[in-house]
Amino acid sequence: MEYTKITNAILAEIENAIGKENVFIDDDSLANYAHDETEDLKYFPEVVVKPTDTIAVSALLKICNHYAVPVTPRGGGTGLSGAALPIYGGVLLSMEKFKAIIDIDTDNLQATVEPGVITEEFMNAVAAKGLLYPVDPSSKGSCFIGGNVAHGSGGPRVVKYGTIREYILNLEVVLANGDIIWTGANTLKYASGYNLTQLMIGSEGTLAVVTKIVTKLIPAVSQSVLMLGSFSTNEQACAAVSAIFRAGITPSALEFMERKGVEWVIKFDDIKFDLKDDVNAFLMIEFDGDDLDTIFKDCEKVNMVLEEFGCTEVLFADTSQQKEEIWRMRRTMAESVKSNSVYKEEDTVVPRAALPKLVNGIKEIGARYGFESVCYGHAGDGNLHINIIKAGMSDEDWKHRLKDGIVEIFELTTALGGTISGEHGIGLVQKDYMPIKYSEIHLNLMRSIKAVFDPKGILNPGKITPTPNP
Amino acid sequence: MEYTKITNAILAEIENAIGKENVFIDDDSLANYAHDETEDLKYFPEVVVKPTDTIAVSALLKICNHYAVPVTPRGGGTGLSGAALPIYGGVLLSMEKFKAIIDIDTDNLQATVEPGVITEEFMNAVAAKGLLYPVDPSSKGSCFIGGNVAHGSGGPRVVKYGTIREYILNLEVVLANGDIIWTGANTLKYASGYNLTQLMIGSEGTLAVVTKIVTKLIPAVSQSVLMLGSFSTNEQACAAVSAIFRAGITPSALEFMERKGVEWVIKFDDIKFDLKDDVNAFLMIEFDGDDLDTIFKDCEKVNMVLEEFGCTEVLFADTSQQKEEIWRMRRTMAESVKSNSVYKEEDTVVPRAALPKLVNGIKEIGARYGFESVCYGHAGDGNLHINIIKAGMSDEDWKHRLKDGIVEIFELTTALGGTISGEHGIGLVQKDYMPIKYSEIHLNLMRSIKAVFDPKGILNPGKITPTPNP
Repeated sequence: MEYTKITNAILAEIENAIGKENVFIDDDSLANYAHDETEDLKYFPEVVVKPTDTIAVSALLKICNHYAVPVTPRGGGTGLSGAALPIYGGVLLSMEKFKAIIDIDTDNLQATVEPGVITEEFMNAVAAKGLLYPVDPSSKGSCFIGGNVAHGSGGPRVVKYGTIREYILNLEVVLANGDIIWTGANTLKYASGYNLTQLMIGSEGTLAVVTKIVTKLIPAVSQSVLMLGSFSTNEQACAAVSAIFRAGITPSALEFMERKGVEWVIKFDDIKFDLKDDVNAFLMIEFDGDDLDTIFKDCEKVNMVLEEFGCTEVLFADTSQQKEEIWRMRRTMAESVKSNSVYKEEDTVVPRAALPKLVNGIKEIGARYGFESVCYGHAGDGNLHINIIKAGMSDEDWKHRLKDGIVEIFELTTALGGTISGEHGIGLVQKDYMPIKYSEIHLNLMRSIKAVFDPKGILNPGKITPTPNP
Repeated sequence: MEYTKITNAILAEIENAIGKENVFIDDDSLANYAHDETEDLKYFPEVVVKPTDTIAVSALLKICNHYAVPVTPRGGGTGLSGAALPIYGGVLLSMEKFKAIIDIDTDNLQATVEPGVITEEFMNAVAAKGLLYPVDPSSKGSCFIGGNVAHGSGGPRVVKYGTIREYILNLEVVLANGDIIWTGANTLKYASGYNLTQLMIGSEGTLAVVTKIVTKLIPAVSQSVLMLGSFSTNEQACAAVSAIFRAGITPSALEFMERKGVEWVIKFDDIKFDLKDDVNAFLMIEFDGDDLDTIFKDCEKVNMVLEEFGCTEVLFADTSQQKEEIWRMRRTMAESVKSNSVYKEEDTVVPRAALPKLVNGIKEIGARYGFESVCYGHAGDGNLHINIIKAGMSDEDWKHRLKDGIVEIFELTTALGGTISGEHGIGLVQKDYMPIKYSEIHLNLMRSIKAVFDPKGILNPGKITPTPNP
């Protein structure tokens, strides 16, 4: 695609359309929006815009579409795949002024919310009405719900409640040419033509800009218990995961952490934890509901499964403080590794019984390439986050040879029936790995769908699909 | 689109590609596949084919795509929107020989199944392994799981378990040009580019032919209790529906039946039921789980809500025979009306608190146009099936004026935040109503997506989207 640089005349048109006070070209603004949470990548936009309503977004896109100016939509900037990076410059479209929780409809158990609302703030507003919006990625305190839609986000409670895909009923979106549509209906069922709502979810701002979101809500639960099981090996912990579900038990969260991850948070964060010598892996298992007796019955059942898989110790947390401490350990892990080492994060997902093979395979590949890894994640969904640590690898190898190791990880993931991202998305940094999972036929379908929505390719260009084979 | 009639030469190519024994041109075959369960519509194909594997489907589509011969895929033929009718003749592609349950993977709680498996047979096979596949449309005894995927099917348990959309992990599909792809991965999470799996669900065979289906399974439940609440008015029963959810209760089924529906099944089916004079509407409320105490607590809670809404009597069914009798009444209703009257069926869906307005509106529209209606359905999802009965309407009015009444029903549905089909799909008979819900911009997006997958328009032509405005 050929893109146009933003001239003074185009800038004036944009200012005129969306208000001068919402357009920023100072160095600080351009620098602030040049990065997200993906490694240390930096791409500077030519202009940062912060429109305040749907009509303004429409006016903006009409101008950008007319001149072929690239537009990169951005939520909270917490993404891990570089989807919010304006790699072709152009307009950085921050949705941060779309801050309204428009309606929490307690009659229908639905909410209408703007995409710039912070996920945790939305969850709290919903909770204040006695309801639950259960999609809480680890970044819930700073990510936007619009970004969650764009990435098909998950989080620890997917194992019981499903991903965001199961909570989004309808979306107001602005198409590349400025047209505004609602993608579906505010209903729990929908069999009225192609499901554009589902197509938008996970499309990372490449098909349209989401400006309103209608979510499903569910009744709140009042009780929860968290268990922390210790294991001597990663493999035993991972093998226990599918056995728990085979026993007919559905926890509200089931997280895996390997020892090394716990060591990082003890070392670098203000977290105290008595890490025993013979423990090499943990499972966090949470149950929620309204009835403590039922929850404790589930705890007993899961205890029996854990014992079968060589669990050496089970810690029960039922006060909120105990629970919060353990959860903090898990949530801090990514940040801890990231702040203290050169690293790369991958987001593998496989059918859950394949987890032992996946975790062993990652370690074996690491041994061959010379990188270390910290593995943790939503084991109940078969979703393992891998923090790859440079460790003893030379700069040269890190720069050139690591990629082959990652290819091997994704080849393994794919061979096990999985895929290359469970919830972080493809964005910029994973797109070159897409051919491991998809044939050129498949990638061309994606490219052609993109062209239907955005014929000039202005929306978040250079993301998701790699450049076609020549 | 210009289509080619099937010549002897093309027929020979097809026979050669998929086996002569799988190709039928006798009058009986053509007549048998000329209709589905939609009203009394009949469209004859030129040839009926019953391929036995994916490679054969691919070979068939290559030929048909080359010559521009229309191909109408067909499951169990139980559809209510005419999606399986070969309105341009051509090839009727019956998937009835795709009968294998390839794998029930108890380690991963997943199954791989061919699209020609009858839904209930699949459910039973899964149940024999102690697992649950909960998507059971009323036609489960004869519909195919492939047809369920094509229509985004639901059923009574959606209210707790979700539609088929939440159970399909991955699909093997054959594209119009014969290319074969898997749409996704066998994983519970997926953030790896546009979600083609979700796009296929509900696309009614217009984008590709599904040849293998990977489903999620969940642990089976051992207990259930069914309550039948009686009300003096439709409005009271419908108003109770959203109040149940507001009270934090989630039944495993919540069905509405109006008196007239119960009268039809008593009159025409072998069903005995003591229908009291002052009762005009019913709610069927089912709870399931593993613990009867918990279920009974929910029953008590729901009882209190029902009382608030003027419920005059509650019948508890806890033996399987009692439960089956009540369920049979509900399941037989469509068939009963259909077999005994000229009728049309609509499948409205709205946010559930809008149900009272919907049911009152339908009656009011009926009064103005002179048609009667029997309403029943999945009230917990806001999904109301409307059987429109000719009653005193003249043949002339039924033929020409009824359409305006249906337009009014869909305008009401849409105004209430709903859509024109919750689970039956659009197919042939609803497509002309699509502009009530969708702008031409939206419909053109659907048409362009169709063109990406099927540039020559051979797959199930004439379905879902109406002819574009000139």
